[in-house]
Amino acid sequence: MLLTANQILELDQIKRLNLINSITGVKPANLIGTYNKTKQSNLAIFSSVVHLGSNPALLGFITRPSEKVPRHTLDNIIKTEYFTINHVPTSMIKQAHQTAAKYPKNESEFKQCGFTEAVINDFPAPFVKEATIQIGLKLTEILPIKINQTQMVIGQIQILQIDDQSVSEEGYINLEQAGTAGISGLNSYYKLQYLESFPYARPD
Amino acid sequence: MLLTANQILELDQIKRLNLINSITGVKPANLIGTYNKTKQSNLAIFSSVVHLGSNPALLGFITRPSEKVPRHTLDNIIKTEYFTINHVPTSMIKQAHQTAAKYPKNESEFKQCGFTEAVINDFPAPFVKEATIQIGLKLTEILPIKINQTQMVIGQIQILQIDDQSVSEEGYINLEQAGTAGISGLNSYYKLQYLESFPYARPD
Repeated sequence: MLLTANQILELDQIKRLNLINSITGVKPANLIGTYNKTKQSNLAIFSSVVHLGSNPALLGFITRPSEKVPRHTLDNIIKTEYFTINHVPTSMIKQAHQTAAKYPKNESEFKQCGFTEAVINDFPAPFVKEATIQIGLKLTEILPIKINQTQMVIGQIQILQIDDQSVSEEGYINLEQAGTAGISGLNSYYKLQYLESFPYARPD
Repeated sequence: MLLTANQILELDQIKRLNLINSITGVKPANLIGTYNKTKQSNLAIFSSVVHLGSNPALLGFITRPSEKVPRHTLDNIIKTEYFTINHVPTSMIKQAHQTAAKYPKNESEFKQCGFTEAVINDFPAPFVKEATIQIGLKLTEILPIKINQTQMVIGQIQILQIDDQSVSEEGYINLEQAGTAGISGLNSYYKLQYLESFPYARPD
């Protein structure tokens, strides 16, 4: 199947959404946890978390325009400056997907979708107890992407909890061992099967 | 294992690099193809490709500072304004990883690492023939991320080629069928095993 820019434009809207959302390859499945000002918790699935740097340890994720529909996660991060990123376990993909439903602001997706709030070291955002990898971040920057009014929310890692069995002495995380899920498009979930690691690449 | 921001800072540099590069979960494995001004091809593996929007169809990826080491991919994109993103097949992860080696500017990673250049519709950047999914993009914006001098390179999709068997009538791509690989950290590769798709989530 070969599509030009015009043919992509002319696709049925839902087909284009499905296709372009899956075209980058596999995406990480993460749940982002926040509190609002009255400590009401919020939990939402995101597939756009990206590594930005290791020193300082910076991660980012993409949000859509906040004018069009309520964005509880973004609102909470702007107000509290803190959020958590938690790996979705393959055993809970259905519950994780359900956090994308539009619940009213006074209902927590933790409770509605079957996740347990965990507090680590008084960190000011809620972690997902069921996640094998939990990351607490402080907001550093919100970067506007002018061409389509999306935004990249950037945070610096403040705290990190990993299941000991999933991380090696050298700091490699085995995502198959961690049971972490991957996503394609908006609603397809994958299990990760470890193949191989290679040394730092040099010319032959 | 629980690490605070200070403990992350105090980690051995290599361990921190490995750990923070794997902490977001699985990343897509893509080869980015470019030409320089004299049509010398370049190919490099990236794990930071991210979906930014479907209409217009926009993808982005992160590059590190170009002052420190030569960045052939970024240099070529700035000069020619075009690039391709090609899914890495699980059968070629070793060759794909090898494109990260620092080859001299007059050597093409296509030839050095065992990939075949493909031209589609005279598109002004080289595709990877062995990839089941090939995307041609035109540069739209380079976004500086000030906090650590990285940049997000944003392109709009101009052309798209997908193996027919890997895409459904609704536009869903099956990444297991496509044989697309995933990456953890800097050097670990995964096969994707399809689990399940869920409908658009609504409150129960």
